[in-house]
Amino acid sequence: MIFSRRGNRKSESMNTKRRGPRPAGTDTREAILEAARQQFAEVGYGRTTLRSVGAAADVDPRLVLHYFGSKQELFLHAVQLPVDPDVLLPRIFDGDEAGIAERVAWALLSVLESPETRQPALAIVRAAASEPEAAEAIRRVLTERLLTPLTERIGGDHPELRASLIGSQFVGLAMARYVVGVEPLASAAPEQVVRALTPAIDHYLHGDWTSSTSS
Amino acid sequence: MIFSRRGNRKSESMNTKRRGPRPAGTDTREAILEAARQQFAEVGYGRTTLRSVGAAADVDPRLVLHYFGSKQELFLHAVQLPVDPDVLLPRIFDGDEAGIAERVAWALLSVLESPETRQPALAIVRAAASEPEAAEAIRRVLTERLLTPLTERIGGDHPELRASLIGSQFVGLAMARYVVGVEPLASAAPEQVVRALTPAIDHYLHGDWTSSTSS
Repeated sequence: MIFSRRGNRKSESMNTKRRGPRPAGTDTREAILEAARQQFAEVGYGRTTLRSVGAAADVDPRLVLHYFGSKQELFLHAVQLPVDPDVLLPRIFDGDEAGIAERVAWALLSVLESPETRQPALAIVRAAASEPEAAEAIRRVLTERLLTPLTERIGGDHPELRASLIGSQFVGLAMARYVVGVEPLASAAPEQVVRALTPAIDHYLHGDWTSSTSS
Repeated sequence: MIFSRRGNRKSESMNTKRRGPRPAGTDTREAILEAARQQFAEVGYGRTTLRSVGAAADVDPRLVLHYFGSKQELFLHAVQLPVDPDVLLPRIFDGDEAGIAERVAWALLSVLESPETRQPALAIVRAAASEPEAAEAIRRVLTERLLTPLTERIGGDHPELRASLIGSQFVGLAMARYVVGVEPLASAAPEQVVRALTPAIDHYLHGDWTSSTSS
């Protein structure tokens, strides 16, 4: 896997905007990614260009092209999941089997309730909704980084479909509760939302609804 | 009423009237709504103005203001749900009690599978994700036109929360299956998706998950 992501608990990299010439020995590729993350977040996918990222990173735009090949590839590498699956998944699955669905619900809700992770999560949802090219990159990131590891943990039959259904409920919750603000879901207590989601997620994880299909 | 499609995106060029003055007796309000629907769909919420809608409808922009008061109010009246709740809801609820969840799942999926309704539905989801002001209008439309009638049909405890949870799964399905294209959900057969969604929707409709809360 070509991902060279660091643990992304804190967005300190986003704040490191370099002004002067880049000193010798600096990690150029990482500098490009930092500049790209900042621009995608600030001006959106559509208005970010290889040229503008190169300028912000103090490198020749041709170097951006050399490292990443296209804006979509750059976005794919720059986008950071608001949580690290390597941290999230053990928290969910290293525990009693009966509580997995509730821990999934809590984990998903925590991403959207925590001020540090809510904005990156909603930014991903918004970009996916409005920019088809960004949606494609996000689809790849979600699948490779989150859904596939989740799928491996789920096991059983049709794990990919189960993971993507959970993902769909998560995206829908983000939209309905945080973006559109549909009431009373928007102002329901987190505990209430978790209680409501848990049996649905349990069904997506463990329900016997795939057995009679031919796929 | 037919409005010719024009590529102009600047309000100045939209100001140029294409036809003569509107003849007396024409339904001015409906003409404004038609022009607004077209512009919101073509250039998005952000670039549609009362002035540009007035120009396209051959009416004084002050008349648009007079009829609707603000762009958001205009959007609220112009946005059309891709399905008529007065048609949809009886189909769901006029039948055996046990099959309601499956009929809800089929109804939601049909909106997204049918070529005539998929685009308007996805346009609403996209606008809601990218334009906060549009999101507010969409929240009102969904609540007043769809969720409240649905809520009245559901009855029992916490019907509004149940309706908004179903709405959230619908929006998430639209995003994951049709906008982002997360696999294997994106290419799963409709029957498979309905089978997967039905028990979750049944839980949102009938589950006993609200009883222990104080709200």
